[in-house]
Amino acid sequence: MNKTRLEAFSDAVIAIIMTIMVLELKIPHGDDLDALKPLIPVFLAYVLSFIYLGIYWNNHHHMLQATRKVNGKVLWSNMLLLFWLSMVPFATGWMGENHFAPLPTALYGVVLLLCAISYTLLQNKLTKHSDGENALLAEAIGSDLKGKISMIIYIAAIPLAFVQQNISHAIYVIVALIWLVPDKRIESKINK
Amino acid sequence: MNKTRLEAFSDAVIAIIMTIMVLELKIPHGDDLDALKPLIPVFLAYVLSFIYLGIYWNNHHHMLQATRKVNGKVLWSNMLLLFWLSMVPFATGWMGENHFAPLPTALYGVVLLLCAISYTLLQNKLTKHSDGENALLAEAIGSDLKGKISMIIYIAAIPLAFVQQNISHAIYVIVALIWLVPDKRIESKINK
Amino acid sequence: MNKTRLEAFSDAVIAIIMTIMVLELKIPHGDDLDALKPLIPVFLAYVLSFIYLGIYWNNHHHMLQATRKVNGKVLWSNMLLLFWLSMVPFATGWMGENHFAPLPTALYGVVLLLCAISYTLLQNKLTKHSDGENALLAEAIGSDLKGKISMIIYIAAIPLAFVQQNISHAIYVIVALIWLVPDKRIESKINK
Amino acid sequence: MNKTRLEAFSDAVIAIIMTIMVLELKIPHGDDLDALKPLIPVFLAYVLSFIYLGIYWNNHHHMLQATRKVNGKVLWSNMLLLFWLSMVPFATGWMGENHFAPLPTALYGVVLLLCAISYTLLQNKLTKHSDGENALLAEAIGSDLKGKISMIIYIAAIPLAFVQQNISHAIYVIVALIWLVPDKRIESKINK
Repeated sequence: MNKTRLEAFSDAVIAIIMTIMVLELKIPHGDDLDALKPLIPVFLAYVLSFIYLGIYWNNHHHMLQATRKVNGKVLWSNMLLLFWLSMVPFATGWMGENHFAPLPTALYGVVLLLCAISYTLLQNKLTKHSDGENALLAEAIGSDLKGKISMIIYIAAIPLAFVQQNISHAIYVIVALIWLVPDKRIESKINK
Repeated sequence: MNKTRLEAFSDAVIAIIMTIMVLELKIPHGDDLDALKPLIPVFLAYVLSFIYLGIYWNNHHHMLQATRKVNGKVLWSNMLLLFWLSMVPFATGWMGENHFAPLPTALYGVVLLLCAISYTLLQNKLTKHSDGENALLAEAIGSDLKGKISMIIYIAAIPLAFVQQNISHAIYVIVALIWLVPDKRIESKINK
Repeated sequence: MNKTRLEAFSDAVIAIIMTIMVLELKIPHGDDLDALKPLIPVFLAYVLSFIYLGIYWNNHHHMLQATRKVNGKVLWSNMLLLFWLSMVPFATGWMGENHFAPLPTALYGVVLLLCAISYTLLQNKLTKHSDGENALLAEAIGSDLKGKISMIIYIAAIPLAFVQQNISHAIYVIVALIWLVPDKRIESKINK
Repeated sequence: MNKTRLEAFSDAVIAIIMTIMVLELKIPHGDDLDALKPLIPVFLAYVLSFIYLGIYWNNHHHMLQATRKVNGKVLWSNMLLLFWLSMVPFATGWMGENHFAPLPTALYGVVLLLCAISYTLLQNKLTKHSDGENALLAEAIGSDLKGKISMIIYIAAIPLAFVQQNISHAIYVIVALIWLVPDKRIESKINK
């Protein structure tokens, strides 16, 4: 089965998610700086989510580059990932409009965690499918330490939001920074 | 005529439909659990419709994979399918926001039925068009028992919504589960 | 210069236009038939515009199929067409929500006329560009009688909206029916 | 690494940005000319931004045409450009709805400047990456006088918005006109 259409569909969905998120930046009624002020937390939340979606697109791109074949299970794992990614604008908007309050901050972490779990699932389906065909990918990913650490960190960040939400925000930013670098492992394997 | 652009266009439309549906999950004003509660039915309806759209994309993908040529009639049958799929977000939102009331539940069934009919029509146009060229697809589909049963079930679900809407909801979920498995028939034929 | 990316971009824009138009079908608050009634004109206007956009996509698809090369002028003519197509959802929504009142009906005709003019412009740029390379397209289009008649009819429909708007609506439907058949001229030339 | 998916993703994002911008043209309640009047500034701002986004898509298209390889840094520079482009609908809507008041006019200039800076950054990443592979692009761009002048003009337009906002509007229109012509430099180099 062909992977091109899976890539094209995922690209379209991620592109739309990234872009409709900006619709949460509602145009204010006044024309002075005071009118813009309440938008600052919404904007910051948007920046963070844009980076996260960029990371997902980027790594998705790398992962499928190293893939030769996709099957039905891969298609549905991909769908699950897209579903949770489609929840990001809601979680972002709720967190931003409530000035990063505890519950919205925790929910944001839950959505990020579910995205990370779905991504790992998709990765597993892609490497298991192989029969040696996706061996390149399997080798490149290895034990996926970075993925596992991220999920553990998210799990810590969710309850921490009720203690002191700023810790959770710091965690979300740090995980984003860890992933901002595209997956060198896969890139270097492909170039060999 | 080339099928690539038909695929690309359908991908884009289905991707957008899936994603704008999430806009119905309006961001609540409060920042506590009570604020999220009214969104639960909207979320559940969204999950169901996301799965249905995923199924359509998936099967559309398989069907066109087994197709060699498309013509004007195919393009318009595809347009009809996209039209009824574009009605899914409206039906989903209306059903979700009215807590799965009878009439919205019935309308949801009507939209699903019209999607199924359009899909069957597209399938017929693709297999008839052939002159042997799309014979692979025709053979893979056979009598399309699964498609026919789905339509009969939808027809039953629509009036049942006024008797006891939960029966209809159960039916919608069951049909989705039946289709969740990608069309093995086509897949196995292609691999031969 | 490559035509693939021009096709992909146009596909995306037309797909989005078609799909965001459905957002004008605002979800009503009640859950009975009365709640749906005010949506009927909006729905009808949506159906008409969906068909028009389908026609444009379809003919655009055919036209570029017969094209070998695109240049800067073609890119901008295409942009102009996309701009006027992007006005269709606004004109549709305004006409639908005002129950097909005279002025919105006339504006709808103006937008259709501007789309038709832009399309003709793009066609001219594509055939002129040729140096024989797009000769196939030039030959297939010929004097473009159908395109010219459509524009004359639109010009008549605009003032007629203020006399009796139903005449204009009938005209819009008739022109859509004329074009619903994909451009046999190009198709037959390609198949030769 | 493959550039096709980068192009496809950028196309999708730019297409969505261009199209959701039109959602700011809120459908008025009346059905007469008075109802349309308040939309005129929003429409004019939309036209200007549509042209700017068209220019970016066009030049992006040309730039990647002359590119052979992309890497992680290019992907992220591209993401940054898409981020600032995604701010254009907000800036456009704010400027349009406030009848081109000074602060929104200045903010529009800031967003345009940030888009221009990101574009230059992407260009640099693409030419530096090369090792001679993207030499064609490097040669075609040369000292990028047009890009540098545009940025200087934007920097002037931002404070000028508080003196007399019409000067800034005139500047935005002039820069758009300068760029409306696709980058002949690259086109001519490719054709050689």
